[in-house]
Parts: sequence; structure tokens; C-alpha cells
Amino acid sequence: MPAEIKGLNEECGVFGVFGAEHAASLTYMGLHTLQHRGQEGAGIVSTDYQTLYQHRDRGLLSEVFADPAELERLVGDGAIGHVRYGTSGHNSIQNVQPFLYRFHDGDIALAHNGNLTNAVTLRRQLEDEGAVFQSDSDTEILIHLIRKHIQSGFINALKQSLNEVKGGFAYLLLQKDRLIAALDPNGFRPLCIGQLENGAYVVTSETCALDIVGAKFVRDVEPGELIIIDRDGLHVNHYTTNTQLAICSMEFIYFARPDSIIHGVTVHNARKQMGRLLAREHPVDADMVIGVPNSSLSAASGYAEEAGLPYEMGLIKSQYVARTFIQPTQELRERAVQMKLSAVRGVVEGKRVIVVDDSIVRGTTSKQIVQMLRRAGAKEVHLLIASPPFRFPCFYGIDVSTRAELMAAHHTVEEMRDLIGVDSLGFLSVGSLIEAINLANVNGAPNGGLTVAYFTGNYPTPLYDYEEGYRKSLSEQEKLARKEVTV
Amino acid sequence: MPAEIKGLNEECGVFGVFGAEHAASLTYMGLHTLQHRGQEGAGIVSTDYQTLYQHRDRGLLSEVFADPAELERLVGDGAIGHVRYGTSGHNSIQNVQPFLYRFHDGDIALAHNGNLTNAVTLRRQLEDEGAVFQSDSDTEILIHLIRKHIQSGFINALKQSLNEVKGGFAYLLLQKDRLIAALDPNGFRPLCIGQLENGAYVVTSETCALDIVGAKFVRDVEPGELIIIDRDGLHVNHYTTNTQLAICSMEFIYFARPDSIIHGVTVHNARKQMGRLLAREHPVDADMVIGVPNSSLSAASGYAEEAGLPYEMGLIKSQYVARTFIQPTQELRERAVQMKLSAVRGVVEGKRVIVVDDSIVRGTTSKQIVQMLRRAGAKEVHLLIASPPFRFPCFYGIDVSTRAELMAAHHTVEEMRDLIGVDSLGFLSVGSLIEAINLANVNGAPNGGLTVAYFTGNYPTPLYDYEEGYRKSLSEQEKLARKEVTV
Amino acid sequence: MPAEIKGLNEECGVFGVFGAEHAASLTYMGLHTLQHRGQEGAGIVSTDYQTLYQHRDRGLLSEVFADPAELERLVGDGAIGHVRYGTSGHNSIQNVQPFLYRFHDGDIALAHNGNLTNAVTLRRQLEDEGAVFQSDSDTEILIHLIRKHIQSGFINALKQSLNEVKGGFAYLLLQKDRLIAALDPNGFRPLCIGQLENGAYVVTSETCALDIVGAKFVRDVEPGELIIIDRDGLHVNHYTTNTQLAICSMEFIYFARPDSIIHGVTVHNARKQMGRLLAREHPVDADMVIGVPNSSLSAASGYAEEAGLPYEMGLIKSQYVARTFIQPTQELRERAVQMKLSAVRGVVEGKRVIVVDDSIVRGTTSKQIVQMLRRAGAKEVHLLIASPPFRFPCFYGIDVSTRAELMAAHHTVEEMRDLIGVDSLGFLSVGSLIEAINLANVNGAPNGGLTVAYFTGNYPTPLYDYEEGYRKSLSEQEKLARKEVTV
Amino acid sequence: MPAEIKGLNEECGVFGVFGAEHAASLTYMGLHTLQHRGQEGAGIVSTDYQTLYQHRDRGLLSEVFADPAELERLVGDGAIGHVRYGTSGHNSIQNVQPFLYRFHDGDIALAHNGNLTNAVTLRRQLEDEGAVFQSDSDTEILIHLIRKHIQSGFINALKQSLNEVKGGFAYLLLQKDRLIAALDPNGFRPLCIGQLENGAYVVTSETCALDIVGAKFVRDVEPGELIIIDRDGLHVNHYTTNTQLAICSMEFIYFARPDSIIHGVTVHNARKQMGRLLAREHPVDADMVIGVPNSSLSAASGYAEEAGLPYEMGLIKSQYVARTFIQPTQELRERAVQMKLSAVRGVVEGKRVIVVDDSIVRGTTSKQIVQMLRRAGAKEVHLLIASPPFRFPCFYGIDVSTRAELMAAHHTVEEMRDLIGVDSLGFLSVGSLIEAINLANVNGAPNGGLTVAYFTGNYPTPLYDYEEGYRKSLSEQEKLARKEVTV
Repeated sequence: MPAEIKGLNEECGVFGVFGAEHAASLTYMGLHTLQHRGQEGAGIVSTDYQTLYQHRDRGLLSEVFADPAELERLVGDGAIGHVRYGTSGHNSIQNVQPFLYRFHDGDIALAHNGNLTNAVTLRRQLEDEGAVFQSDSDTEILIHLIRKHIQSGFINALKQSLNEVKGGFAYLLLQKDRLIAALDPNGFRPLCIGQLENGAYVVTSETCALDIVGAKFVRDVEPGELIIIDRDGLHVNHYTTNTQLAICSMEFIYFARPDSIIHGVTVHNARKQMGRLLAREHPVDADMVIGVPNSSLSAASGYAEEAGLPYEMGLIKSQYVARTFIQPTQELRERAVQMKLSAVRGVVEGKRVIVVDDSIVRGTTSKQIVQMLRRAGAKEVHLLIASPPFRFPCFYGIDVSTRAELMAAHHTVEEMRDLIGVDSLGFLSVGSLIEAINLANVNGAPNGGLTVAYFTGNYPTPLYDYEEGYRKSLSEQEKLARKEVTV
Repeated sequence: MPAEIKGLNEECGVFGVFGAEHAASLTYMGLHTLQHRGQEGAGIVSTDYQTLYQHRDRGLLSEVFADPAELERLVGDGAIGHVRYGTSGHNSIQNVQPFLYRFHDGDIALAHNGNLTNAVTLRRQLEDEGAVFQSDSDTEILIHLIRKHIQSGFINALKQSLNEVKGGFAYLLLQKDRLIAALDPNGFRPLCIGQLENGAYVVTSETCALDIVGAKFVRDVEPGELIIIDRDGLHVNHYTTNTQLAICSMEFIYFARPDSIIHGVTVHNARKQMGRLLAREHPVDADMVIGVPNSSLSAASGYAEEAGLPYEMGLIKSQYVARTFIQPTQELRERAVQMKLSAVRGVVEGKRVIVVDDSIVRGTTSKQIVQMLRRAGAKEVHLLIASPPFRFPCFYGIDVSTRAELMAAHHTVEEMRDLIGVDSLGFLSVGSLIEAINLANVNGAPNGGLTVAYFTGNYPTPLYDYEEGYRKSLSEQEKLARKEVTV
Repeated sequence: MPAEIKGLNEECGVFGVFGAEHAASLTYMGLHTLQHRGQEGAGIVSTDYQTLYQHRDRGLLSEVFADPAELERLVGDGAIGHVRYGTSGHNSIQNVQPFLYRFHDGDIALAHNGNLTNAVTLRRQLEDEGAVFQSDSDTEILIHLIRKHIQSGFINALKQSLNEVKGGFAYLLLQKDRLIAALDPNGFRPLCIGQLENGAYVVTSETCALDIVGAKFVRDVEPGELIIIDRDGLHVNHYTTNTQLAICSMEFIYFARPDSIIHGVTVHNARKQMGRLLAREHPVDADMVIGVPNSSLSAASGYAEEAGLPYEMGLIKSQYVARTFIQPTQELRERAVQMKLSAVRGVVEGKRVIVVDDSIVRGTTSKQIVQMLRRAGAKEVHLLIASPPFRFPCFYGIDVSTRAELMAAHHTVEEMRDLIGVDSLGFLSVGSLIEAINLANVNGAPNGGLTVAYFTGNYPTPLYDYEEGYRKSLSEQEKLARKEVTV
Repeated sequence: MPAEIKGLNEECGVFGVFGAEHAASLTYMGLHTLQHRGQEGAGIVSTDYQTLYQHRDRGLLSEVFADPAELERLVGDGAIGHVRYGTSGHNSIQNVQPFLYRFHDGDIALAHNGNLTNAVTLRRQLEDEGAVFQSDSDTEILIHLIRKHIQSGFINALKQSLNEVKGGFAYLLLQKDRLIAALDPNGFRPLCIGQLENGAYVVTSETCALDIVGAKFVRDVEPGELIIIDRDGLHVNHYTTNTQLAICSMEFIYFARPDSIIHGVTVHNARKQMGRLLAREHPVDADMVIGVPNSSLSAASGYAEEAGLPYEMGLIKSQYVARTFIQPTQELRERAVQMKLSAVRGVVEGKRVIVVDDSIVRGTTSKQIVQMLRRAGAKEVHLLIASPPFRFPCFYGIDVSTRAELMAAHHTVEEMRDLIGVDSLGFLSVGSLIEAINLANVNGAPNGGLTVAYFTGNYPTPLYDYEEGYRKSLSEQEKLARKEVTV
């Protein structure tokens, strides 16, 4: 059975700290800034050098820790935490991380951001050898592999296991007396190291989580690294040297927080550059530029500045949770969409409007936005996307649903323009995407290793369990193109 | 006992609809867009022409109606709803509106946005005459007055009562077969009328709530009006003709939603104009302009455009609820502030930054923002406020805490600059504030009736129960000034 | 509009204490022993001589005070509490007592056990005079009457008000510096006084609540008394001398706890005597006696001893809450009844069984019990009721539903036997009921004032608002009988 | 590390049904009648022949299924359920059964009543071989053993595993298309088979759960049996023939429901016989007999009948949950005990009272009961226990805490009498216990296989992991005695 062609909902954020008082409180703050990486579950495991303490549950961090006593219970100087994105159905508490395993020879907690491409195969092998899984999550595979090899010692078992799992992964492990971090050989997911004033180390998905706890940025974790932090400090180790940085471009396009810095690039700046290059590639005669809040505001202001057009607030995103379940009629259900996002009549009425958005997935939201703006009186609506057409799935940890649902996988730009009902539609080119990220690099140097497979179909690794299903989903022409292109 | 010199936490939003199927669902959607006017409680009362149905509770709308069955229970074609702002202590469910009163001669529901200035006096009189109050809210006074005069008929009793209450008020009342709206003689609070496609009428605090339900804007309710909506349509009535529009300028400065249109002025446009005029009054040599999210983004982009400076995302507001209660140490508590708002190092580092904010109340937030930006590496920080110094309380329905807490009431601009620790500090003038709002008026005509007493101390009405305490709080100089100025 | 012919769900229990540390904790314990008197809501108001503190909610006491902080918040040396019985629909939190009213001249809390017979009339009068009610409860009437007369001073106003309300009532009032108790002129509901070791006084519905807090029984409150307890001790006062004790016989039959002592009669002993006299009036040739748990176990063991038959556990009541809502089919719904009560096959199989129950209301439960026993193999089932046929409603505070639902109001004993499907059916005579209660009196003296109107139709007071509806419900024969009989 | 000398909190109840519509609803009803076997968690897993559905949580059944939707979600014709007893600390949701394991070759649910005596050893072995446990529960061991042997086929793997686990166990397993039950070689825990009218089979801990769902009793499961129920009906199989019935006598003494029939013995009847024999062994000159509710009422009525004394309600157990946590002082904490159980003054005052209880564990409750009765005025209090002195732990599934806590393990009867403060104290002899159970056997035949090790120290099996700790806890004299006695 090949894996389904979809990202397995492993968009997540991780945070770990070792050697600092109130480690769980620091982790709580760090996870708060990573909440955009996962809203369906959250958890923290702490250590007081003797015992591991766990609390986790479904929901937002503020819901999971609604009772402050739950956080106070997580005593000790070390902790790891996790925010989880997951679709319904598998959203049981068993899948909420960090997982905590208790063994007679020592407990282990485990948190994971990424997606394994050979999970189905590994799980089947392990089950046939006697393993009993407690979750649907790929994450659990690592612990079974470790235990399988445990006779060779924990670190050796871990290294061996990290060489057996394939795909994108940033792991944090907590034992009673140390914190371990490991990144996949391509560094698909971001992972960085910071240091608190007292010398304690932090490892986390994004630098915004370093800022909130007052940690100074030290460096990004490199592909293939195994970082061990204990009471003696930080030790750098490798489980493989066969590595090639290929960080996921989606992090820059829409996933990471604008204030995070990934491999030298401030995300807001990268997005603003995407907007600027988009303005050069797709100039439009219009009265104003508006962004789709919140992720497209940086790109929109870049476009406006480059184009010399006013940047206006033509769409408003409600800052309150909008439960839309409650509508008895179709008409009300349609209106309810605007509880999340609404057009500002007093701004767009009678105007020619450029809307800048970060990407088009299914196209439904774009269509709704255009309709909203027209209903609010916009004379023209031009939709410009600050990334290339999104045609191929991500297998490394961002959920993009099946390929069948990607609008750009099945339609030309012209078809999409008609389906969305917009006056004009334009996308950023792959070249400009790469250029924008490089321009935003504070080090001035081009950022060499970037995965843009979602736009080209050329993946930097084999796809393992996904290969068969993926291949079937391609057209003849795409199969051909796939072989020709080299990243 | 004079009333305390503070707004009595009556910032609120109201929404009513009559003659439309699923009236409660429409009200739910409308209240969602008014959630910024009050987050501490919400409720809806509906009518099926026979019976009134109520649900209300503390918390956000989405919490109050977390169980969809609660909304389904509110059947019928008419409904009124309310979102409430209130401080702790009096935040019991008894104070959550709409209130519902059951009488042998017919039930009445009541929702109120505003603040009465003679509530203490009226309540004491009523209690001495036998009245039993069930809440701490001023709102309840109206119903006791109505019942006191009930022998002269309901509408007469209501008119008489509306002439006895003083201050700012926008009332919605629901009876089994009609909806009634009334606005105070100065129109301090916004209240507007819309119409659905089927002809049903909506009355609500802001036009953004008309948009979400698909209602066409009809007109603003005028001061002194009594609007009655029943199955025959809308009837305009007056309880007084002694009126003078004096709408609260705070609605334009920060309180209303940017997409709302109040007396012809789109709030976002007014704020952008405030930013433009601020740039003219206070030009600063700097590298970029940033706004304090979310309420100051309009003004900041206006400033940037007028000044020809880049508009950047130098501050990020978390879109997730940040519970900051959980911090065990002072240092952690200070850091926790950044869970709500944080500076973007990659944007501001090494730069001369202009921060545009809408107002300064206590000054604590401004100080934190400046510190955040400096810690993130900003070379210079200039703080420009898109409204005049806020020196005098609002008695008409916006909670500004006691005068003792208003920074501008006790310090010169120079002192404030030093206390906040900013390189320069500037405020918009009262004249420019008025001009900005007039410039944004789509009707091209100046908006004549605006209350700017918070900046000048000259209130358009007597202060009744607040007069004594307010006078005591003034310096000799202010008392003098108060007599001289005429609005 | 006459009042509906039904008890208005005012079965309740009250507890008050004044002058003892941790008064709210004592009240909590007292209310726990009174939980059988009402399970739908509970609340406590305490005083620290300055301020009144309230907590109340729907549900069992243990649910209402699930968070211990709620009880700790109720500081002070005085407190009153209430457990409430109410049917759905009116079971909103507004109706949960004690009510707390805040006036500029002093706060008052109020708890009530009983039912007023002129509530509809009084409420209408008060509303026409301007009163605004906040609950559906009759209880609130008293506070409006008091406020109406408040100009003559609080105690005078209270006395005047107590003379205006009719029916059965045991009131507790709490002011910041005193506790007041009042009993109706017939003493329909039990109310007794106890004293703690430190001298503080307790007033409560049943003596079991004195035992739990370690209070020594002092005496029963007498009809027409007004008891005032303040820091100087207990003061006995009267609001009327036109009194006649007529305590509700239902308290002895099934309502009160078996360990309570009411006017000298231990309830368990009274019930055992009812069982003994029942055995004399209705001897049956059978193998064993079983009781319907829990209220009929005393009577059943009395019957068994008098009859010289084994007393067996033939029916088991589950000690766990049985939610029966969840059954998808009719068959399952019928089975679900046994989740509450089930027959013991190993005991009754092949046996001739006498079932003793305390009363028959609708007859449905009796029918189910008989079916259960037959299914479990009982050869014969004889049903003996330790009270007379229940034919007329209680208007003084016990909810017996409408007369239409009383099986004995519409059927002869023979008809009932057939409908229930039992081999024989017998009731205790009114004379034996009275004799049994008198026999159990520790004072040896007959208990003169007992209301047995539920069996005879002869009420000791006018029925006021209920009179018209009640009269209509009677047959010609009953109307005739009603005039002839004298209690 | 030897296992702690305590029962590992595996008192539980299980229920399974296969081939009946609404299997989960039947299971819910069955579990309700088994709630006395475990109150700390409950769960159900159902199958629709395709998929297994699970719901479980901490708390009472009515809490776990408070939302009826949870039960409706458990569709299908087969189900198993579990109620769990567990001490705090390990009371996480992970330990709540049935466990559900998902494998690529088919899912398995598992529920267990009992306690393994070699769990520590097995778990360590399994972990060293790579197993990852997800709970603290012994129950999980079986599934790891099965998977270890899975290559030989599921049933073979199960049989092999059942031969590796030691101690007391009644297992239910559910696969998508069958239900499997297995009982340990000594039949320590009760397990019986019933049949619904439609022919579907039920397997459950006690016959009371058959009655509630309308299932006819078929027979008890025999030691060593493996029962497989699928769509073809019921298949009897054995995993061992080396069996010897030794059912736990505690089930008869206090644990099982009085209406259950275990190996032909109705529990109420057995208890009544224990009371009768107790009366013969320990006649006392007194005025009345009272039982400690609820478990001792059968024995007390047996004693009363045999002794010819009145059986009275001298102690009342509250039928409402008593939260006693809330008491601020020691005195209040002591009083709070009476919220659960209280003495009836009107019954016991001035009387010589015989209290019949089922057992003495720590002796604290006995002491409190005696004090309560004396405070309520009892002239003499005689305590008679309807079982022998409880001196040795149960290792087969009843939690009796450590031996250190058993009062009878460290004191003579005379010492216990003094410590409890009672006028006289007597216990049933081991011989009479066995006789009473045999007398109650409807088959007239003596019940041969009964475990009375708790009174004699002679266990019918090796103790494995417990052996070392147990031996250390014995006095020299006991060690000697242990070898001599043969069961």
C-alpha cells in the first residue's frame, strides 16, 4: 500500500531548552510564538534531572494550559515542547506531542517537525517484528527504531535510526539529563540554536521563539547534525555527512513568522522582495494595492512601494475566532465566510484594486476574496501571487493536501483567471522567488539550498512510499519534464 | 456619593434585526464583527412574535455560543444582541446583556451601548421608591423608569424615561412584536440603520455589521430619535427635539473598526488622513515608518505615504490569545509582554524608526514598545501619536479609567518623551484631528458635531453625578481654562 | 389567570448559621445532608459583617462547588444556603437561591422553602406598581413587598410582608449583621433551631443538618415566628399570632431524611410504624417482604417484623447516576429503567413477594417494579403502600404535578391493582398514618397538627390563586365531600 | 526489583457483546451495573465488522459518556467495555481501557480484569527486546506478547501469550470480526456468558450485567477457557488444561453486587448466610442490629433474623457525592466524614447496638463508625465482622493496599477491639465463611474452589514478582505457618 499523496499533517513547531530555571515556562512562551505552525494540539515535557513530567492536549496552547497549575507541575531545568497541526479524524490526544515513553532503563520524550517518506514501510516492518504502536503519527517510528537497536547504546541506536528514516525531520528528544536535537540531511525544516544569558541553550524551529525568551541567536542547525545539550554544555555531533541543504521555500513564502530569520534571511524582508519583484514582472495600471491579511501584507507593501501605488487596507481579517458552523441556510453559510475576512467598502468602492496574495492552493479562497471585493464596489480586481503556481505536493512536512486539490496542477493561468473571476492574474517566476530570498539575505550571499519542487516537480530526494502514487498523478508531459529538469 | 471619575465600562456593541428568518443567526454574525467593542460578555434575545428567548454568558461570542444548540434555541424573526466590555469584579453573568424582563403584560429585552451620567442619583431614587435592582449596570435603570410610568402606555413611558436619563446611550429594546432603537440627544455613540434584501430592517452600532449580514446601509440614527420597527416596517419617532450631534471622536481614532462608515466617514480613511496630517505637523528624518498593530496601521501607512518613507512591519502582534499569567519570575513576566507584541529585529536593526500609534493612555505600553525596538537594535525611535494628548475622561461610554491614570493629564509632552524614553514625541493637533475626519467624509462636507472633550476638557453636556469628582481632579489652571474655551 | 394546579417546584432545603467561623463551610456540609430536598441548584451567601458574598449555580451541591476556591471566597461568620428542586424550562441560574439583592441602604440575601398560594395575584399587583422581577420564582415576591414598605423600617416592612404572602413558607434572610428566619402560620414546612458548641445558632430545614455540623438541637421553629440572630444572640419575635400547626405529612411519608426528627418524631421510626400498622391492616400470605429502595426500606422492615416474615433485598437501587437518555430503541429505553432499579433474581425467583412502597403518584414506577419482579421469577407480587391513596395536590411546597396525573385521583384501588398488574394492592388508612406518626413521637404525646389534605382533599387554609382551578378539577362527588369533611 | 506488595489497582469490570444491534448501548448499560467494580475510568470500543471505534476517559461512566454523541459514534454490532479502578498518580487517560491498538494487519481492542504476578519481569524482558509501552498498566503486556508471537497466527500467538502471563485475569479482546474472552487457570475473577433473545452472546464480569441487557445466563466461563464469538456463534477453546477453580472469596464478601450470581451463588444470599452463621458464632445481648450501608446490609439482616433482634437503620449513607476536600479546620474535616455516613440519633440513642460490617481493612472507618454511634447516644456498640480477619494481600486483582496497612496483620482481635474502641468485636471463622457460600449455592453442591488466602496466607499459586517482598513482610511465625497449611 503506497502512502497517500498528501502531506501527513506534520506541520509543526518545536522548542527545547536545557539548563534554565522554569524551563517549562520558557517553553510555553516559545511555543506561543510558534503557534502559527500548528493549532490543533500542544504539549510540554520537562525534566528535573530525575523524572520527566508531561502535559499535552488538543487545542491551542492557551487552551491546553488554561489552568496555570498544569504548567507549574512541569518542574525542572529542561523541557521540550511541540505545537501540532493535524486534520480531523486522527486528531486524538494520542497524537499530540511531545510523546513520553517510560522504560525500565530511562524515560524518553520526543517531538518532531517534518514528514517521513518511508513511514509506511518502516511501520509495517516494525509491526511484523512485534512493535505495538500507540499513535497514527510517523513520529513514533523513531522510538521503535531506537529500542530495536538499544543494545548498542542509546546514542549509537539513535544515529542508526536517524539513518533509517527518510524525508524531512527536525527532532527534539529529552532524557532526564540531556536534550538532543537532530535535523534531516537536507535541512528541509528550519531549526536554530540560541543561548540565554545564563548560558543555557535553546533549540527551536524559528528565531522568533528565541527572541521571546531573550535568547541570543547562535546559529542554524545544519543538515545531518546531532546536537546534544547536557549540564556540560552543547556538543555537536553528526549522524551522517552525506548532506545537502535544501530548505523548504514555503517557509519563506507563507509558513514562517515574518520576524523569523532563517539561514540569514528575515522572512518579512524576503516577502517584501517577492512583492517588489512581482511588481516588476507584473505591473498593473490600478488605484491601489491591498494585501490578503495577514501573511501577504509584507509582499503587498513591497509591491505598492515598487509600483508607487498607495497601500490600502481593503480587506480586514477578524482578530476573533469565527465559528461559522452555525448557519442554517446556504446564503448564511456564504456570508459567514466574511466573519473571517471582509472587504472595506469605503476603501475599494469605485477603485481598480490590485490584490497581492502569497499563494493559491485550491483557489476557493481567492474566488471568495474577489467576489467580496466586487460586492464592495471595486471596479477592477487584479490578483497577483507572490510565488509561482503551486503544482506539486510537499512530502517534507507541509500539508498541501492531495495533488488533486491543487488548482495550478490542473489548470493554466488563463483558466485559473477565469475560474477565480478576476480581471488579471499573475504569478512570481521561480527565478524571481529564488532571487527575492537571496536579496533578503543579510549576509549578501546567495542562499544556495532551497527546495522549490512544489513549483517544478523536481524533488531533491527519492520519494519512497510516495513515489508510486505520485508518479500516477502526473500527466505524460509532467513525467517527461520531471526527468529533464535538474535543480 | 458622587460617581467615580471613570467611565463605567460601558463600551459595547449592539445589533438588532426584525422581520428576517434566522434573526438570531444574523445577530450572531453581526455581533462577531462588533466583537472589538466588547470581549467580556455576549448575548442574544430573539422573538418568534410570541415568546422571547435568551442566551448570554461571560466571554467571547465564540465561547458563549460554543454549543450551536444555544443559537438554534433562539428561534424567530426578530432579535437583539450585545457584546459587553466590563472590568473584573462586576463581571458576573447578571451584567451581561441583553437583559430580559418578564412581565404579566409582556416581556421586554434591553441592550445598551453608552454610559449614563446621572445613574447614581436615579438608582437611589428608584430604590427608595421600592425598586429592586438585579445588576450593577446602569442599563437596568431604564426599565425601572419605564415601569414607573407604565400606566401612561409603553411608548409614552419609554419617551418619558429617555428624557430622564442623561449621558451617552444607544438603546435597543425588543418586545415580542417590535424592535425599538433610541439614541441620546448628542448622538455620542454611533448607531445606524440598514435593510436586508427582503426588506427587514437592521439597527446596529457600526456599518461593518450591516456588511456581514448583507444589509444595505440606509442612514445613521439621528440624536433624539426613537425608531420603531414592526411587521409594518420602520417608524421614525422622537422623544426630544432638543438635540445637537456630538459624536465621540474616539470612535474614529481607535475604537471603531476600520471598515465602518460613521456619519459618512470611513474609519480607515480618517485614520490615514490623521497619519498624513501628522506627517505634515511632525516631519522626522528617519529610515522607515512602522505602526503599532492593529489599530494604528492605517495612520502609519498614511504617514509613510505622506513622508515618502518605506512602511515596514517592525512590530508583530500575535494572532493568538496570550495568557501571560503563568510567569514565575519578574523577568519572565516582562518577557511575557512580548507574547502579545514583539519587535522584528531583521527589520529595525540599525535603523532610525518612526513609530505611529493612535493614542497614549497610561504610557506603559508606549514605553514597552520603545524598549522592545531598542532591544531589537533600532538606532533611533521616534513616537508620533495620531491624536492629541488624551487629558480628560470620557463620560459617554468609553472606559478611560480615572483621570489620575492619564499620562497626558499630568505631564508635558517633554516630560512624556523622557518618561517613555523616546528620541522624539509628537501629537496631532486638535485642529488637524477635526480636519482629518472632515477630509475623509465622502460627502465632502465637514462633519460638524464631534466631541473632542478628551483633549480640551470642554464637555458638550453637564456631567451630573460626575461633576463634583471631576472638578476636584482639575488643577486651578484647568478649571480656569475650562470656563474660557467654547467648543 | 388562575395558577396552574401544580406545586410550583418549591421543594427545597435551607440552612443558615450566624456567629461561627467558616460559616460557608458549615453551610456546605449542612446543605449536603439536605440534598435530597433539591438536586437542581444550590447556593450559599455569606457575610463577613461588611459585605455579602454569593455563589450559586445549577446542579448538585458537589457540582456547584466543584472548585474549592468558590467556597473559600465565601468568607465570614454568617451564611445561608439553599438546595433547589425545579423542573426544566424554568431551571435557569436566575432561579437558583439564595437570591442576593444589593441596595444603596444595605444588601439582603433570601432563601425560601415552600410555595405561596397568592403569588400570581401579588406579582401582578407589584408589577402594575412598577416592580421589575428578575426570576420566575415566588420567592422574589417577598423582597418586593419589603421594599414597598421599607419606609417603615426593615423589620416592620418584613412583618407586614409576611402577613401578605399566603401558603407554606420557611424563609431565611441574611443581612450583613444578622440572620432572620420566618415560618408560615401553619408550619407546613419543617424548620428547626440548633446551637454549636461556641454558642452560634443554626436554623435549617431538618435536624440531620444540625448533626453534621455538630449543633445541638434546640427546638423547632413555631408557626408565625420571626427569629432574629445577631451578634447578641437569638431573639424570638412574631409577625402573627393567628397560627395553627399543620405540618405536611409527606415529610414523614417520604420526603424527609430518615434520621431527621420533626416535632419530636424520628422519621425512620415513623415509617417503621407505618409499616407495622400496614401489616396489621393488610396481612398477606407470602415468603418475604422487600422494600423499594431507598425511601421505603424503613416501612418494609417494619412490615416484615410485624408480619414475622424475612426481610430481603429483592430490589437494588444503583448508587451511581444513571443517564438513560442514550437509548436508540424503545426496547433499550425500557431496559434502561433498570439502570436505576433492578430486581434480584436469586432472591425472588419462585417466591411470593410482598413489596412495600411509600406512595403511588402516577403509578408508572409501581408498574415497572412489578414487571421487573415477575421477569425475575417472582411467583406472586403483592404491593402494599405505607400511606393512603394520594388523591389531592399539595399547594404548600411539595411538587406533586397536576391532579390529572395522580393515579389515585381517577381510579379505585381495584382499578389501580389491575393497571399496575399486581396480585393484590393495599394502602394504609388515614387513621393509621396519623397513629403511626404519633406512636413514633418520643414525647409520647400525639402530634396534633398534621396536614393530610393530599388524602382527604380538606385543606387547612384557603387556596387563593389555586382555588378556581382546583375546584374545576374535582368531581361533583368530591366537591360535596370536600364541604362535609372537617380535619 | 520486586513488585510492591500491593494489589496493582486492577479491580475492574468488563462487558462484551457480539452480534447485536447497538452493541455500544448494551455495553453502556452493562457497564453501568458494573460501576461498583471501578469508578476511575471507563471506556467502550465497538466494531462495525470493518473498523474499531473507541471512547474512553477518566471518571464515572456517566461522566465519560456525558455527551450522548460519544456513544452514538460507537456504531456496530460488537463491543467491549471496561470500568477501571486506579489510584491517583497513574490515573492518566492512557491507562483507561479498553486499549485499542492499530496494526497494518488488523486492529485489536483489549480489556482486562485482574492482576498479573509476573508483570515486572515480563515488561523488562519485552523492553529489552525492543518493546515500547504506552501505559503503566499490566494489561498492555498481553498485546506485546501476542505481537512477539504473531508469526504463528493470531490465535496461536494469543494462546502462547496466555500461558506466559501469571496471576488473575479475565481478558476480553475485540477484533473487527470477533470477540474473544479468556480466563486465568484458577478463575480468580468471575466471568460469565449470557445470550440475548436474538442469539447474540454476552461475556461479562457479573450476571447483574446480563440482567440489565435482557440476556439469559448461559454459564460461567471456566478456568483456562478461550471463548471465541463471531458471526457463526460461540466457540469454546482452551489455552491450557492445567486448571483449578479458586475464585476470590472477596467477591462474595463485599466486592460483587448483591444481585449477581457467581458459580451458582447469589451474592446477597451468601452474605445473609454469613450474617446468620456470624450470629451463631457470636451471639450478643443487644437491642438491635444495624448494618453498615450498603455492602453489609445483607449480612446484618441475616444476623438480625437469626438472632431474633430488630433490624434498624442506625447508619445512613448519603446517596450524593460528598466532596470533603473543602474543610479549613481539623474539626471540620472530621465532621466532613459524616457527609458520607452518619448515625441516626432517633434510632440508636440509649440503645445497645450490634453493628455488622463486611470486613476490616485499616480499621479507620470502623473506629469512626463506633465514635459516631456513641456520639449519637448508643449505650453499647458491638462490632461483628461477617468475614475472617483480613491479614494477607490479594495478588489476583483486588487492591488491598500493602500488608503494612492491614490492621489484622499486626494486631490480635483483642488489640483491634481496643484500638477501635468497641464493647466487643467478633469475626466469622474461615470455616463458616466457606459454609455460608456453599449454603447459598442454588445447586445445593458445595462450591469447591474458593481462594481464602487473605485470611490464611496460603496462596493457590506461586507469587512470582511478589514472592520476595511478600516473604519479607511475614513474621517468623507466619512463615512457618505458611508452609504447614495446605489449602
